[in-house]
Amino acid sequence: MDIGIIGGSGYTGGELLRLLAGHPDANVVAVTSRSRKGQKISDTHTHIRKIFDLNFEDLNAEEVASRSDIVFTAVPHGTAMHIVPALLDAGVKVIDLSADYRLRSDVFERVYKIKHADPRQAVYGIPELHPEVADQNFIANPGCYPTGASLAAAPLASAGLIELAVFDSKSGISGAGAEPTRVSHYPNMAENIQAYKLTTHRHRAEIIQELSRLDGSLSKISFTPHVIPSIRGILTTAHIFVKNELSEEEIGRIYHNFYKDKPFIRLIRGIPVLGSVRGSNFCDIGFEIEKDSRRIVIISALDNLVKGASGQAIQNMNLMLGLPETKGLWTPGIAP
Amino acid sequence: MDIGIIGGSGYTGGELLRLLAGHPDANVVAVTSRSRKGQKISDTHTHIRKIFDLNFEDLNAEEVASRSDIVFTAVPHGTAMHIVPALLDAGVKVIDLSADYRLRSDVFERVYKIKHADPRQAVYGIPELHPEVADQNFIANPGCYPTGASLAAAPLASAGLIELAVFDSKSGISGAGAEPTRVSHYPNMAENIQAYKLTTHRHRAEIIQELSRLDGSLSKISFTPHVIPSIRGILTTAHIFVKNELSEEEIGRIYHNFYKDKPFIRLIRGIPVLGSVRGSNFCDIGFEIEKDSRRIVIISALDNLVKGASGQAIQNMNLMLGLPETKGLWTPGIAP
Amino acid sequence: MDIGIIGGSGYTGGELLRLLAGHPDANVVAVTSRSRKGQKISDTHTHIRKIFDLNFEDLNAEEVASRSDIVFTAVPHGTAMHIVPALLDAGVKVIDLSADYRLRSDVFERVYKIKHADPRQAVYGIPELHPEVADQNFIANPGCYPTGASLAAAPLASAGLIELAVFDSKSGISGAGAEPTRVSHYPNMAENIQAYKLTTHRHRAEIIQELSRLDGSLSKISFTPHVIPSIRGILTTAHIFVKNELSEEEIGRIYHNFYKDKPFIRLIRGIPVLGSVRGSNFCDIGFEIEKDSRRIVIISALDNLVKGASGQAIQNMNLMLGLPETKGLWTPGIAP
Amino acid sequence: MDIGIIGGSGYTGGELLRLLAGHPDANVVAVTSRSRKGQKISDTHTHIRKIFDLNFEDLNAEEVASRSDIVFTAVPHGTAMHIVPALLDAGVKVIDLSADYRLRSDVFERVYKIKHADPRQAVYGIPELHPEVADQNFIANPGCYPTGASLAAAPLASAGLIELAVFDSKSGISGAGAEPTRVSHYPNMAENIQAYKLTTHRHRAEIIQELSRLDGSLSKISFTPHVIPSIRGILTTAHIFVKNELSEEEIGRIYHNFYKDKPFIRLIRGIPVLGSVRGSNFCDIGFEIEKDSRRIVIISALDNLVKGASGQAIQNMNLMLGLPETKGLWTPGIAP
Repeated sequence: MDIGIIGGSGYTGGELLRLLAGHPDANVVAVTSRSRKGQKISDTHTHIRKIFDLNFEDLNAEEVASRSDIVFTAVPHGTAMHIVPALLDAGVKVIDLSADYRLRSDVFERVYKIKHADPRQAVYGIPELHPEVADQNFIANPGCYPTGASLAAAPLASAGLIELAVFDSKSGISGAGAEPTRVSHYPNMAENIQAYKLTTHRHRAEIIQELSRLDGSLSKISFTPHVIPSIRGILTTAHIFVKNELSEEEIGRIYHNFYKDKPFIRLIRGIPVLGSVRGSNFCDIGFEIEKDSRRIVIISALDNLVKGASGQAIQNMNLMLGLPETKGLWTPGIAP
Repeated sequence: MDIGIIGGSGYTGGELLRLLAGHPDANVVAVTSRSRKGQKISDTHTHIRKIFDLNFEDLNAEEVASRSDIVFTAVPHGTAMHIVPALLDAGVKVIDLSADYRLRSDVFERVYKIKHADPRQAVYGIPELHPEVADQNFIANPGCYPTGASLAAAPLASAGLIELAVFDSKSGISGAGAEPTRVSHYPNMAENIQAYKLTTHRHRAEIIQELSRLDGSLSKISFTPHVIPSIRGILTTAHIFVKNELSEEEIGRIYHNFYKDKPFIRLIRGIPVLGSVRGSNFCDIGFEIEKDSRRIVIISALDNLVKGASGQAIQNMNLMLGLPETKGLWTPGIAP
Repeated sequence: MDIGIIGGSGYTGGELLRLLAGHPDANVVAVTSRSRKGQKISDTHTHIRKIFDLNFEDLNAEEVASRSDIVFTAVPHGTAMHIVPALLDAGVKVIDLSADYRLRSDVFERVYKIKHADPRQAVYGIPELHPEVADQNFIANPGCYPTGASLAAAPLASAGLIELAVFDSKSGISGAGAEPTRVSHYPNMAENIQAYKLTTHRHRAEIIQELSRLDGSLSKISFTPHVIPSIRGILTTAHIFVKNELSEEEIGRIYHNFYKDKPFIRLIRGIPVLGSVRGSNFCDIGFEIEKDSRRIVIISALDNLVKGASGQAIQNMNLMLGLPETKGLWTPGIAP
Repeated sequence: MDIGIIGGSGYTGGELLRLLAGHPDANVVAVTSRSRKGQKISDTHTHIRKIFDLNFEDLNAEEVASRSDIVFTAVPHGTAMHIVPALLDAGVKVIDLSADYRLRSDVFERVYKIKHADPRQAVYGIPELHPEVADQNFIANPGCYPTGASLAAAPLASAGLIELAVFDSKSGISGAGAEPTRVSHYPNMAENIQAYKLTTHRHRAEIIQELSRLDGSLSKISFTPHVIPSIRGILTTAHIFVKNELSEEEIGRIYHNFYKDKPFIRLIRGIPVLGSVRGSNFCDIGFEIEKDSRRIVIISALDNLVKGASGQAIQNMNLMLGLPETKGLWTPGIAP
């Protein structure tokens, strides 16, 4: 089917192209960028040279819709809400990679300090937690941190077992985008780890939304992000305090049952590492219980640009189009 | 077709599996490892978990041959020569990733200080330089450094223009293998670059073989390798002194003509970087001439585990089997 | 004064030499290593070439004591306890960098599964928490993680305010030593972060000892370590849940008062980074409170080989010898 | 003595402060920055917090001169030439870290495309090659690449032995400065190596100047720089073709004699690495000869911000002031 990408010059745009290059049913017909209009997309995304021979175009939503069956919007927060309505009105399916439709409008406005322009609600596109993705025309693709945190804790939340959850997440720096900043400056990032927004990161609202949906009584959720000297990947260390002591077997069973039909979740004995998921749509999950205690440490590992963004978007696309969930995504990570 | 891999526990074995996972005609039927016999291959190659559900086996050549149409040998130098004859005798096609058949036997013995056990000659598998690959049952898959160096200089060598070639190569550390060493110890490798075997690296013999095949009079070829703090990739800086001054246009034309039907060579304006080829089978090449001088600097960039090893092996496989050269390999690199 | 180092071939030994090179009163007279006996120490510690012209010797405790005023023992856990008694009996001052004397003997035996050979108790050498260091002949130099965690939380613990403390620590890989391992193998460590011993790291016992010394009622202390792709440094993210809400000003005042005369503690507005302390004996501390909540996130940053090991050892030495605490240590980190 | 730094907000300014903190005779009295006037210098250079308690000032040359005995100018190329004359007229000694006075005016104008405003000549401050530094009031501090390349080749050049020299240099990214750029963006720099200005880097003119000063007949000098994923350090691979075959002993003797009284040059058997010199003023040099050939590969390693900039500037200062050359600089590198 024919695919449009609105806002294709950033990392999520480049990653959509990389992954769609391997999708047998995907035909990319339009990639927009206002600032790079007329330039070859391979001048920006040098890895797709010879694979895609397209130029960036400056098209409005209607023009993209007229050529496409499904459209990915990869534009900044606050911009998508002005593009999505026209796309949906034109009858194409939409997957929005921005934050605009991930939260209830009022929560969005509080967290992002932006007035919302569109009352529409979207389904939150973590397919492992939202089977209803399959019937949708419109999906809000989740944030990278919330994907890792929610997948780590969802089985326990769903079982009503969590008393307190402290998510300490470590992300590769590509999550901050393609534009150079002081934080991403190599001498600042290498040989370092930078904690930031210790208690106020906006992704926390998504984590709360998803986990409290599974357990209405769960409210004690903390989240602190860090960037590490890695290009890709998010490792989430979930320090979970549960309501009563659980054995390793009990927890193993809970996770196994919860994820048993989910192709992209890999439950492992041992501790997940970024190196196993780099470039792939897998989320690896492992855990350890603290003896004589009600603390469990759960580790999830995923690639922030794949399962944390563009790969999950394509997983959503597959489901929305009635294709096998894994189509074009059943590829190993790149290791070492 | 059915594929066997002999010696599958190292990085080239893991990379063959990663790439074959995306090859529509490939069916991996046997992966051997003496030391890991019976273990799941995904315990070693954690990135292929859920994708390949195979165990390492301890099989001899005949057993592997009996199940396979084509076999990759990814064993240490000096070992392949004792396995390959039985495979070929059994009628399967063979691609050897070791050094055993890359050089003429006498040169091999001098360079590797190993007595050769098999007089057979193999075609040297850089398909861009050896179109005869397509008719072979047996290919010696080239070294990573020689692939980068030869591809950088071949057009000029073929035109008889080179007087002196100094190859200064920089490799990711995965080229040194999966076993921890003093050199690969993170505190030694990070924030560092390590030159080694300044004048005596064994890959130099392959570079000389390939370039002097193109220009019998060419003899002044130097090669110095380095490892850089990068997992993958080889960047080769070829300092070429030519016999007479050439314009940018002339050189551009020579390269264009030489590589015009070669899908995996990307000639670029500007300077190749590892980030554009990581994980892919492409080799990017760019150059600059020194004004009023007979010096040209040519840069080639490739992924040492793909175009420098397992990807090129699959490219050879495609050609040997009459498949399209790019089948299963037409994937972008992973960037950023 | 004359200084001996027993077990000088590892990273803490090399770091003692680096720092003592800049100490005006230090005269290194003996560096022992059984396995490298007779070799130049600069062949192991290449950074001190031309600065120290000594060879490793294989000396027993008495021989080292006979030449020295003070001795650093930098030997493996379980070994120091067999060396320290002889040194103290010979009348020299001792700073032990192993874990042998950091914990009460019974706790040590439980945590390290090693029978203790020496009933002696040592003062635990975080001088900021143990002013009694100044009067000692024998100091147990703390672990790297416990230094970062204890310094981050001590002021709140001392004020009796902590209900629950979750320490999520991120360390450079040099903490794992100079010997190559699977974890320290560059392709495994780069572009990665590895959580380990999620609930069972032995350093937790030191953290508990130090914080519960300050607040006898404090028992809920969790600790999870990670290694990051960095050579040096430990960043500790302390997720502290306090007994009642505190304002930023109140916490600022508590920390200021607690550390006001401590030269190596730098309280900062903003979030500490490893890049500010690399190579120095400083520990930078910053914090943020979560609004309408009883959670505080405190970040401490230090160099694991300096304030987390050899630098703190020299700080202890200065105090034990009646020298200014900062002598030879008042040097900036190396940035960028 | 009293020291002024004009233009102290960049990496060389921060490094001057770091090194001067350890110099017993240095008293930093003024650090200027127009854009950061009034800010604490430790807000920019966070590693010197608590060590220097100064603010940036916006002072003109006369004001700085009136307080100082010696002034370092660390301003952009083209700016120093408008500041230095006033400083020298005011009678203070000057060490200029810009390129303005490194080359003869006419060469400077051709290479930098900037009209020179000051006819003055400065001595080129590589003290190992310019003993006349000791008598000067004004020194042009060399570029980082030329320091590494010239020190690597000077003994052979001085002996009139070089026919052709190809310098292939690899630098840490701090050489590009403190401002974030596309090249220094972590996702572009990590797991990569970037060749640039393959034949046209401006530092080549300094290398030619220094080597042809030692051997008037030497003209074939090539230079190609690269940035590697390292914060600090320059490794130079000098591919030297000599006029006649030389034995290892002969070359060893030439280097030994040339550098025998030079404290900061460390001639080593084996191959220098950045890890041995990081943070120090040492330049390590090693070499290997190619058998039956007239090619020698010489490797030099130094820290671009120390021996390649601020450390060498202080070495020059020591000599200009009649102090021991090594004063305040006799510190080991930081390893690992």
